[in-house]
Amino acid sequence: MIILGVDPGIATVGYGVLEYDKYKFRFIDCGIISTPAGMAVEDRLVAVHEGVLSLTGHYKPNCMSIEELFFHTNQKTIINVAQARGVILLAARKAGIPIYEYTPLQVKTVVTGYGRAEKRQVMEMVRLTLKLDRVPRPDDAADALALAICHGYNSSSKLNGINRPIAARRTGGK
Amino acid sequence: MIILGVDPGIATVGYGVLEYDKYKFRFIDCGIISTPAGMAVEDRLVAVHEGVLSLTGHYKPNCMSIEELFFHTNQKTIINVAQARGVILLAARKAGIPIYEYTPLQVKTVVTGYGRAEKRQVMEMVRLTLKLDRVPRPDDAADALALAICHGYNSSSKLNGINRPIAARRTGGK
Repeated sequence: MIILGVDPGIATVGYGVLEYDKYKFRFIDCGIISTPAGMAVEDRLVAVHEGVLSLTGHYKPNCMSIEELFFHTNQKTIINVAQARGVILLAARKAGIPIYEYTPLQVKTVVTGYGRAEKRQVMEMVRLTLKLDRVPRPDDAADALALAICHGYNSSSKLNGINRPIAARRTGGK
Repeated sequence: MIILGVDPGIATVGYGVLEYDKYKFRFIDCGIISTPAGMAVEDRLVAVHEGVLSLTGHYKPNCMSIEELFFHTNQKTIINVAQARGVILLAARKAGIPIYEYTPLQVKTVVTGYGRAEKRQVMEMVRLTLKLDRVPRPDDAADALALAICHGYNSSSKLNGINRPIAARRTGGK
């Protein structure tokens, strides 16, 4: 299946696209949707929404894996990040793909086998898992790939040998 | 001009539509868009988004007046309310109408002339201003009308005799 990982944001949305089949991953693409700071919020939301629709239209993913937002996330930007996340979920729903949410802790645990792994360890595991020459840039794109990898493993089995099963909360979709 | 007031939410979005011309208001409509609690978040976002698009299509408002969200708002629901607000702003932008944001304090101050007014005083001033027989129900609809009234007065003049001018933050639009 094709998985679209998304790291939500208002200034920068990271995305990662990969194919997953029986514990094997194939890297397809990654990058960011970025919106300028001086742009009106609703215009940034349009850019994010249309950017995600363009990704779902191009790569025809079977599902979206997106980071769950928490209240203790950066207080200064949480409202705008959540607003952006709203238009991202709307885009996934319009594209008819199911959405799965993972916490940063779940991503770390599944990708590295260790919930307290440092960011660079997660990044390095993304690189190794996808057989890439270097860690993808920028961080938001690599984070999105980690989310996609997390969902790949987690979708496979109740106990896949790498980590304990995670109660991924599926938010819906079809 | 026709003003669409919107009180954002995920379970209930209040809306109020009125016409404003030189300190005179004409009530047009008010109500709520509601989404069931058991529905997946992305489906609720679709319902909110399409509900607002349907209002802008039907009433052809010249602008939207929407409550500004703050971090200290209800911590339990802030993420979902902000996600819903994102798809509301997206709808306004798609409809090509400018968006104006007001804080609850600004609404109280403009509508009643007193920033510490109680909710029932605001409701009563909404009723009187719009020459209605009773206070509109539910509260979310009345709150949305208060937002629309606030923008009407505030759009008129730098010092309109009812209250001090308020630095309404226009988030953009066209």
